[in-house]
Formats: sequence, structure tokens, C-alpha cells
Amino acid sequence: MGQNLILNAADHGFTVVAFNRTIEKVDLFLANEAKGKSIVGAHSIQEFVQKLKKPRRMMMLVMAGKPVDDFIELLLTKGGIEAGDIIIDGGNSHYPDTNRRTKYLQEKGIRYVGSGVSGGEEGARYGPSIMPGGNEEAWPYIKDVLQSISAKSDGEPCCQWVGDEGAGHYVKMVHNGIEYGDMQLITEAYDIMKRGLGMSNKEMGQVFSQWNKGVLDSFLIEITRDILLYEDKTDPDLLDHILDSAGQKGTGKWTAINALDLGMPVTLIGEAVFARCLSSLKAERGRASKLLEGPTPKFEGDKQQVIDDLEQALYASKIISYAQGFMLIQNAAKDYSWKLNKPEIALMWRGGCIIRSVFLKDITNAYRSNPDLENLLFDNFFTKAIHKAQPGWRNIVSKGALWGIPTPAFSTALSFYDGYRAKDLPANLLQAQRDYFGAHTFKIKPEAASEQYPEGKNIHVNWTGRGGNVSASTYNA
Amino acid sequence: MGQNLILNAADHGFTVVAFNRTIEKVDLFLANEAKGKSIVGAHSIQEFVQKLKKPRRMMMLVMAGKPVDDFIELLLTKGGIEAGDIIIDGGNSHYPDTNRRTKYLQEKGIRYVGSGVSGGEEGARYGPSIMPGGNEEAWPYIKDVLQSISAKSDGEPCCQWVGDEGAGHYVKMVHNGIEYGDMQLITEAYDIMKRGLGMSNKEMGQVFSQWNKGVLDSFLIEITRDILLYEDKTDPDLLDHILDSAGQKGTGKWTAINALDLGMPVTLIGEAVFARCLSSLKAERGRASKLLEGPTPKFEGDKQQVIDDLEQALYASKIISYAQGFMLIQNAAKDYSWKLNKPEIALMWRGGCIIRSVFLKDITNAYRSNPDLENLLFDNFFTKAIHKAQPGWRNIVSKGALWGIPTPAFSTALSFYDGYRAKDLPANLLQAQRDYFGAHTFKIKPEAASEQYPEGKNIHVNWTGRGGNVSASTYNA
Repeated sequence: MGQNLILNAADHGFTVVAFNRTIEKVDLFLANEAKGKSIVGAHSIQEFVQKLKKPRRMMMLVMAGKPVDDFIELLLTKGGIEAGDIIIDGGNSHYPDTNRRTKYLQEKGIRYVGSGVSGGEEGARYGPSIMPGGNEEAWPYIKDVLQSISAKSDGEPCCQWVGDEGAGHYVKMVHNGIEYGDMQLITEAYDIMKRGLGMSNKEMGQVFSQWNKGVLDSFLIEITRDILLYEDKTDPDLLDHILDSAGQKGTGKWTAINALDLGMPVTLIGEAVFARCLSSLKAERGRASKLLEGPTPKFEGDKQQVIDDLEQALYASKIISYAQGFMLIQNAAKDYSWKLNKPEIALMWRGGCIIRSVFLKDITNAYRSNPDLENLLFDNFFTKAIHKAQPGWRNIVSKGALWGIPTPAFSTALSFYDGYRAKDLPANLLQAQRDYFGAHTFKIKPEAASEQYPEGKNIHVNWTGRGGNVSASTYNA
Repeated sequence: MGQNLILNAADHGFTVVAFNRTIEKVDLFLANEAKGKSIVGAHSIQEFVQKLKKPRRMMMLVMAGKPVDDFIELLLTKGGIEAGDIIIDGGNSHYPDTNRRTKYLQEKGIRYVGSGVSGGEEGARYGPSIMPGGNEEAWPYIKDVLQSISAKSDGEPCCQWVGDEGAGHYVKMVHNGIEYGDMQLITEAYDIMKRGLGMSNKEMGQVFSQWNKGVLDSFLIEITRDILLYEDKTDPDLLDHILDSAGQKGTGKWTAINALDLGMPVTLIGEAVFARCLSSLKAERGRASKLLEGPTPKFEGDKQQVIDDLEQALYASKIISYAQGFMLIQNAAKDYSWKLNKPEIALMWRGGCIIRSVFLKDITNAYRSNPDLENLLFDNFFTKAIHKAQPGWRNIVSKGALWGIPTPAFSTALSFYDGYRAKDLPANLLQAQRDYFGAHTFKIKPEAASEQYPEGKNIHVNWTGRGGNVSASTYNA
């Protein structure tokens, strides 16, 4: 990845100094891929630092965690970097670490940048999505090179300044969480077509090919088409034979945990992470499949109608997932006092990365036309889109339940939509329960406030007629 | 709560020394509630310690966090406690803190016990559920008093030794998570009856009264009946006027985060926590309700059939939630090397606490008849129960989707059931996607293994025909 970014920068006319603690790697790189390009090697950290123009712009790609701290210390102690120099962490660091490092280095006059980079090997080489955040003083010095090497969408670079401290790595984390969600939604559509409608991989490939020409046009739909149409020479049923067990130890989990910590209902990413957990219980599921019964879907009817409904279910659920993702980002900005630029974030995700799609252009437009947009669902384009999509979406969730095919992401998206648009949710009963068993008190709805039950006051009533009227707060649920 | 536990212990023939750092509180307590009982006061920490028989058995009820550490240090430095003495933390500490404290005090020869206590003020006074864990050497000394003051279920005390370190507080945390789930399920049933069937509170109260005589018989169903039938003198529509905004900053959130950390699909508690998050966005929901449309349920048909289906949906979802909770506990036992006793845990929850129910007796029976039961759903009683419940359950999830009434917990439970009993999930496609865009490789299903694609091997294929066959692992999704 580091090598590919260097080659990418060299292609754009920059002279780059390459360093690796394993010196042989540097020489091998210079003798091969880097040959004839504006790439210079360094055999020691001192040489690396000395060869750079001031203020030095240094980007590291090392494993997240301690290796990042170690490399920073190496630059500080052995490298002899100076105040004004810039360090960029292009790895997958957890944002609290980047918060800490930005502050630590600011005290030493070093400008630190934590940057999410998405797009894999190929993206790094030919144009990734780059999400830098940290010490904003660094931005004027690194803007040119990062934007040059980044992907472009409609001529605009998919690299913009994200915000303070760990904001860049934070936005990359949410990006990855959304990627978990997008992938889960696609697998649910595939499962409904495969087991519900009994379609072949080839038929499904044609559906994805069709979908890739409409509102779902995106990298993940495109590669799903390729995968379904792929013909393996060794095993004609390869796709069906791939072990259905997925891992989830990374950024998807962090996003879900962060959502819980911030109290934001990012349910779709949560379900996507849990779906991976469930998939990984492969052996236990095998035993369960022999004991636990369900309906056997035997579909008779208009197949194309279900496929059209599925497209709408996928589209509507995706709108919900991105709306939830931006709710999280918006709340993080408030909680962490970061200035986060929503239209620019959508722009950065439009090209170079795994979740790139036409859809993100509509999100960019929504936030550009109203930077203070409270929720993506309030944008006229998306309000209309979800209204149009909902009959099909509801049919799919209903069918999944009746057919016995799991749709955790479609379902949670729909429940979120119906909950979000509900002026009154049944949490009034929940508050009454808490007051009943723990004397936790409740508040009254403003429109129902009275002299006895005024607005904003903590109220306790004696639900049983037994016991006293004293409220308490010792029961901590 | 502390005072109530003291009174409870005194009622059972124990002599108790009461201490509080606010000395007036001790005197007030002795002069009033404690008058004429076997309760002695202490005006200083030294006096408190000196008045106790050795090995001293001391229980503290202070706020979770630093106050617990502070009180421990006070006992150690000023109190003059000695090796062999026992400290019990009866508060709502987070289990990692209890892990740490148990080890710290073990080094000093002090036996530390972290005990979950559930049941609120009334429970503390007349019989709570008590979940002690920590240094097991303490158990023979405290068993008698804790079991005496605890609730009883069919004559058995709802207090058993849970396990090492923070296991007691851990099990209390999961208990609270399950409580979140139970409450959410009830509110969903209420919402379907209220908005879907247009029923009055009184009619719904009668339904809950009926349900409380069947498989759902439990404290939470009982109090919901009371709440629905309650007639407030000031506001006849009080329940409908309670602000539908619930908090979620505690143990429910910890449980969901722990599930994500351990990779266990505890989806129902997750959705219950997120549902509270969504409820708390009251003002935003108000604005959304004016913009975002949905179907208007107008029910015509057999109301009683829907009510019967709802009972089954609630029952089946509850089985899933407890199955998930025990999956989490079982996995924690493995990960943290705790010996956790599943039948005893179910027994402890049968009485005294908020989730107490007849249902927990069936769980106790399941684990008693087979302590190695892999999953609650594999027990014959529960397999049969969920088979019987599923047609109604599926109808409710389907109706909720079509009617526009959110059922996040019913739905996620059903998706879990259908995913758990699926030998093959669509995660094969997900693994193919990851191999496509990040060369992450996949494994082959054992039954499809061949010479070219052997079992257990990491396989990468060139999905597009472009690029090479080299696998990589640099893209960290």
C-alpha cells in the first residue's frame, strides 16, 4: 500500500523519499517498481529526514496501535525532525489514538495528521479516497499532493480536510461501518432471490447488472454482478461452495460501539456486524438446522415484481443506513467539538473507495444545497425516494418473515423509518414501567401539561395504590 | 437500599453494624427504622471494623466507580481490616472494575466479592435477587446471610455463587440487558394493539391480565396490566401523556458493547438499546412525522387472532432474547475463564428481580436436565415452544411492516431465528466480495472441498480476469 502511494505520487510529478526499516525492501523497490521514477531511497531514519525539504511532509503506513507510536518516537528521537514538520498516519488507526497523538505532537510543534485511506491496493496506486484530519495547520502544505493522488469524482478530488484531531480516522471508521451495511444488504437481496425465488447465479447476475444501471449503481453492486457471473474453471459452483462465515473484528464493530456510546440509533450497521457474528457460528448453525424448523418457501407468482420490490428494499434501506451514518457523524462533531463538513465527506466517498456510488452524489447535493440539513431524510430528493420505495420495501420485509429468510438489515431499516417518523412512540409505557418498579419518575408531553403535571417536571405516581408516593433513583436499570 | 438490606438481615436474625460517612444518617436510622432491631451503629470506620466479628463480613453500597475504590482504601488504611476479611460490593459496578479489585485485594489477603443485587427498594427490604462473584473463599462465610435475605423461588434462594472475579456483576449486567429487551418487546406489543388494532388502555389491560395467566406470566407483564388499568385522578389519559423518551446510559449499553466485543449476536438487546436512543430524539421525530409518510393501518378482521399472534410473537422473541443472553454468558465464561453455572443463574433470576417470571423456571429446568446444553433453543421444551409460536410471530412481523408500526425487537428476533437455523447463510457472497476487492481470500465448505480447493486453505481467485492471482491482506475492512 505504501509503495503504491509512492508510485502514485511520483506519477503526479512529486519527488518522494522511500524508507522502510527493512533496508532490503527499499533497495528492492528502487531497483524494480520505482526504477526510472522520481523516487529516492533512504537507508536510515536520519537519511530519510535529512533528504526531505522543510517543512518535512512524512507519511507512514504501519500497523495500527503501538507500531505507530514507536515510529513517531523514532522520528522524534533518532530522526531529528523539527517544529513545523508534518507527520501523516495513513493507516487504520482508531480515532482516540489519533486524538491523543495530535495533541502530544502539537505540544512539540509537530503537525500531526491522521488520514483514512480507502480503496485497497488498486486505489492506493491509481486514486484512493483520502480522509485527512488532525492539525489543520498542516493542510496547506499537504493539500496539493494528497488531492493529486486521490480519486476524482466529476473532476473534484475525493480528498478534503475532514476536521480536528482524529476526525479523519473517525470518518474512515464510519465509512467502513457503512460498507459493512451495504454488503449485508446485498447478501439479503441475494438470499431472497436464491432461496425465496429459486434463482440461479446467472439469473441473479443479470439482475445485479440491471440494478447497476439504476439508483443502485455502485462499486459493490458491480462486483456482485461479476461474482455471480464468474465461471470458475475448477468448480462451476464455486460461489455456493464458499464458506459462509465472515469475520468482524475491526472498524464495523468500532462504529457500532461508538453509536452505542453516543446514543445514536445506528441500527443497520449494528445488525450488519451481528449478522457477521452469527455467520461465524457455522458449526452451531449446522446443528441448529437439524432441530429448528421453519416454513419452506415455494414461490409462485410474479417473480419480476419481487425483484423490483427487492431493488426498492435495497435502495430504501441504503438511504436509512447513510442517514444513520450521518446522524452519527453529526453527533460526533457536536460531542467531540469537531467541525465536520458533511458535503465534503459525501464527496470523498464518491470515488476511490469501496462504497463509491452514484447515490453519494445525491447525498453531496443534498448537503451542498443545505449544509444545515438536520437529517438526510429531510432532503426533498430523499423524502421522495423513500416514499416511492416503501411499498416494495414493506413487501420484502413481510415476505422474508413469512418465508423464513432472515432480513435483519432490511427489517431494522424499516423499523427505524417507522420509528423515526412516529411522533409518538410506545416509550411512554416504558417510562411508566420504570416509574412503577423503580420510582424513576417520568415527564409529561408538553401538549398535555397541566397545573398538576407541569412540563419538564419529574413526576411519580403510585400505580398500585400500595406503597408511598416517594420517588427514588436507586434502582439503576 | 443499604438501609433496607440491613433491616432485611436483622429480620433474619443477624446482628448488623451500620455505618455511613454522614454520621447523622446513622443516628437517624438507629432512632427510627432500626429501633428495637439487632442493628448497631458505628460513628467511624474504625468503630465499624472493630465491632465486627472476624473474619469480618462487610458489604458496601456506594456509587459505582471511584467511590468504591475510595471506600476500599478507607477500609485498608484507616479501618484496619485484616487478612481473611471479606468485602462485598453490592452496587452496580462494571465487571472489569470488579475483576481488578478482586485481584488487588487477593494480594493483600482480603476476600473481595462483587455482587449484583436486583429488585429495587422493595426487593432489598423483602428479598432481592443476589448474584455474588469474586473470591470464592468468601462464599462459605457469606452464603448463609445472603441466601437468608434473598428472594426464594419454590423454596430455593435466588442467590447462588456465580463465579470468579467480576462474574457476579457481569451476570447482573446481562440481567439488566435482558430487562431492556423484555420491556422493549412489551412496548412493541402495546404499540401494535394501540395503533394497529385501535384498542383502548382498558382493553389492553385485559389482554395483559390474560397473558399473565399463561406462558408470559411475569412481573413485567403484571405491572403493564396495572399500568394500563390504572386510573389517574388528575389526568384520565395519563399513560398516553407520558413523554415517550427513554434513557439508556447504563448496563443495557454495556451488555450490547460486550456482545460486540465478544462477537456474539445479541441482537435483541442491541435493538432495545437503540430503540431507547431513537425514542430520545423526540423533537427530531416530531419534525420527521410531518414530512415522512407511511401507511395508515385500518384494521378490519379478527382482532382476537392478532392478539393471539402477538402473545406468540412476544413469547418466541423472549425465548430468543434469553437464548442470546445465555450465549453471551457462555462465551464470557470461556473468554474470561469463569466457571459460570447456567441453571443457577436462571434460578437467581426467577425471584426478587425485575425479569422474574414463570418462564425462568423452564430455563432452570432446561439447564438442570442438561448442564452442557449448547443452546437454549436445543432444549426440547423450547424447540417445541418456538415451533408452536412461529406462525403467529411471523404474522406479527409481517403485519408490522405492512402497517408501518415499528417492531425492531420482534423482527430482529425472527431474523436471528431464521439465520441461526440456516445451515447456509449468504455470507458466502460477502466473503467473495471481500476477496474481490481486497484479495482477503476465503475458505471452502468442507463438503465441497476438492484437491484444488482443499478444506481449511485460504483461497483467492481472480474474479475479473484482470490483475493477478496474488492475495493480500492490506485492506482492513
